[in-house]
Amino acid sequence: MALVLSVNVPSVKKPLPAETLTSGCSIGAVQDGGMGALVTLTTDFGRDSIYVAQLKAVLLSINRRLTIVDVTHEIPPQDVVSGAWVLRHTVPYFPEGSFHLAVIDPGVGTERRCLAVDWEGRYIVAPDNGLLTFLYQLSAPRRAVWIENRAYFRAEVSSTFHGRDLMGPALAWLTHGIPLEELGPSAQKWVELSDDWRPRVGDREIQGRIVFVDRFGNLITNIGKDCWPQQVRPVIKAGDYQLAELSRTYGEHPPGSLIALFGSQGYLEIAVVNGSAAEQTKLTVGTPVLVTW
Amino acid sequence: MALVLSVNVPSVKKPLPAETLTSGCSIGAVQDGGMGALVTLTTDFGRDSIYVAQLKAVLLSINRRLTIVDVTHEIPPQDVVSGAWVLRHTVPYFPEGSFHLAVIDPGVGTERRCLAVDWEGRYIVAPDNGLLTFLYQLSAPRRAVWIENRAYFRAEVSSTFHGRDLMGPALAWLTHGIPLEELGPSAQKWVELSDDWRPRVGDREIQGRIVFVDRFGNLITNIGKDCWPQQVRPVIKAGDYQLAELSRTYGEHPPGSLIALFGSQGYLEIAVVNGSAAEQTKLTVGTPVLVTW
Amino acid sequence: MALVLSVNVPSVKKPLPAETLTSGCSIGAVQDGGMGALVTLTTDFGRDSIYVAQLKAVLLSINRRLTIVDVTHEIPPQDVVSGAWVLRHTVPYFPEGSFHLAVIDPGVGTERRCLAVDWEGRYIVAPDNGLLTFLYQLSAPRRAVWIENRAYFRAEVSSTFHGRDLMGPALAWLTHGIPLEELGPSAQKWVELSDDWRPRVGDREIQGRIVFVDRFGNLITNIGKDCWPQQVRPVIKAGDYQLAELSRTYGEHPPGSLIALFGSQGYLEIAVVNGSAAEQTKLTVGTPVLVTW
Repeated sequence: MALVLSVNVPSVKKPLPAETLTSGCSIGAVQDGGMGALVTLTTDFGRDSIYVAQLKAVLLSINRRLTIVDVTHEIPPQDVVSGAWVLRHTVPYFPEGSFHLAVIDPGVGTERRCLAVDWEGRYIVAPDNGLLTFLYQLSAPRRAVWIENRAYFRAEVSSTFHGRDLMGPALAWLTHGIPLEELGPSAQKWVELSDDWRPRVGDREIQGRIVFVDRFGNLITNIGKDCWPQQVRPVIKAGDYQLAELSRTYGEHPPGSLIALFGSQGYLEIAVVNGSAAEQTKLTVGTPVLVTW
Repeated sequence: MALVLSVNVPSVKKPLPAETLTSGCSIGAVQDGGMGALVTLTTDFGRDSIYVAQLKAVLLSINRRLTIVDVTHEIPPQDVVSGAWVLRHTVPYFPEGSFHLAVIDPGVGTERRCLAVDWEGRYIVAPDNGLLTFLYQLSAPRRAVWIENRAYFRAEVSSTFHGRDLMGPALAWLTHGIPLEELGPSAQKWVELSDDWRPRVGDREIQGRIVFVDRFGNLITNIGKDCWPQQVRPVIKAGDYQLAELSRTYGEHPPGSLIALFGSQGYLEIAVVNGSAAEQTKLTVGTPVLVTW
Repeated sequence: MALVLSVNVPSVKKPLPAETLTSGCSIGAVQDGGMGALVTLTTDFGRDSIYVAQLKAVLLSINRRLTIVDVTHEIPPQDVVSGAWVLRHTVPYFPEGSFHLAVIDPGVGTERRCLAVDWEGRYIVAPDNGLLTFLYQLSAPRRAVWIENRAYFRAEVSSTFHGRDLMGPALAWLTHGIPLEELGPSAQKWVELSDDWRPRVGDREIQGRIVFVDRFGNLITNIGKDCWPQQVRPVIKAGDYQLAELSRTYGEHPPGSLIALFGSQGYLEIAVVNGSAAEQTKLTVGTPVLVTW
């Protein structure tokens, strides 16, 4: 995975689509907060693992008044891109004032640092490895700090489990209302995934990538409906595969067919009817996808 | 799956067994409600999927004071019968005043409507596709309404995810105490699974079906202990398989044996000792099971 | 599995390592308890099963003010040793005053009894089959009682599901603050796993066992770093396999290599780089592991 250091706090790339940031209804939602803070967890620890239980024990030891939502603990081990994609499609749905811990951390034990950020009023804690890139493509963080104040760490910090010993405790203390700046100094530069992970839209083509493989083996790309050409019939290429048609639903083709369609989140995906495109094609996260017309 | 429209609100079919509706102890249970509402989720979204996280984000944005219990998100995709079976064996155990969201929704995007019902004091929201049939075999709903009041929908309703955009919000608003009738007009007719899914007990036979396959591959039928004949030795037929004996426990037979026994919930099931009956027999939900004597 | 009855309340075997019992930070943790009791669940019921939902329904019917943490419901069916290992590596991380229900219960329906214990200020309910052995190797229980007072059982107790009908309700009533002794008479003797499950450290060898297989197929032993010899190069034998080297990380060897290393919890484990040691070696829980030098 190609990583580049961003040179400064990036400015907002494009206006944030309002609908992705509101979960409310026509009638105003009630935010009484009587349940304490809302915390989500996105990790590669493995569901049912003792690591998840140890993390929750630490969080709840610091603040018993938490509502914890397990987004997933099944991010493929150390797969920062898949983690970034899941955060992009979950964090914006949670209300302002919610807290989000993301631990996919291949650099644990090295010099990589940890971040706490205010993103659209949501507080996120994560290792500094690009996990927040796809969120930042929606809008830049309002504030970001390096987590350095050891007063908010676990008394003993292991070399392999900073989710439990450092990032988890920092997040739990944030839920008590301590200011972000209490955790450490302001962060001005951080790691982001390279621009190869951003789709490039040209006059006659779109260059994208596979960014996630779902549990059915569907290959989800970063090519959104909003940049899809009108009134032409593009050809879609991924690896050795070429698709000349965009399907509307799975039902249009016989089982086993390789098809391309827009999924429920509005992104182009490559699928096999009643099967697994990941298994059939062996394509995976990172494969370039080229759309031409 | 054969669906029929029921012609009217069905009357109660048989007295509701009291024990299935109480989770209490000899000492009266405390219902202080200080934690806000109790909500269960039964879906085919897939555990660890972003869809579950988005749904919870919407629920908790409307009411932060929820205790959410994930019953399962692993109902086989669009399998209404399996969903109905899980609801039948979970909803009655929860206390009166609890809330239950069931989203197995093959008809999303069509004209199918969504229901909110009061069933034995529990509030259930589900698409109108027969999901509540097995609960209704215990007792009829007290009240049922069509969910039509868009004031309680998400501001933007997608064509593919009514769990998040319509049924979830409606349920979350119910937890705030709005009356059922606020959601829409009274429902008088609704879809139920056909009577083929109800066991038929004759003088010399019982006609039932496989209604659920558990994670071990056990084939669970809708034939209950209460209709089992006494003092005879029935023969059990399912597909090409015939079993002349009812086993008491798995331990009575060598590994690999196909056996029939009553499971812990009191229903006849077909199992393979230390193996998967679903894999070995290829039988699945819907297969008729005939018991004769 | 060899079980022996312990003859009396065992005395503390060795000083309890302080760090395993504290999840706090340098700054004192806040324990406001405003969320009601903290309850963990460790079972072999199967995630997504109706049994887990029924158990939670019963717990929440007795006390709505619970924060429930699912440690795992994927202990291999009836595998008491794996359950004991998970409890050993999770319960100590939770704060004093927390509650822990452990149901791996091969003896249900027999004469085996159920225990409620105060272990280091945590309350644990479990069948009397050795599940708490590895916790007791850290420190002895402060108090233990037999669960016998039927007033705290479910009104109807099945013969197969004492987690839901007996142990769950007893635990839920404990969260209301009833004294342990209210549940039944003091327990003086109970079942523990035999001393074969305790590592034996000699002058030139350590005799241990595989005590857990994680989801990657890593074979985790009960041989801790603290008893590992210094300045020698021990040989590790397990089944027909022999390893002459201790690795530091997975990255040192090519994919497919069988290696031995200390895992993140500080115990010797046998692993296959990018593979499953359980599948490759067919070794499993209980296999003796001999370290000589």
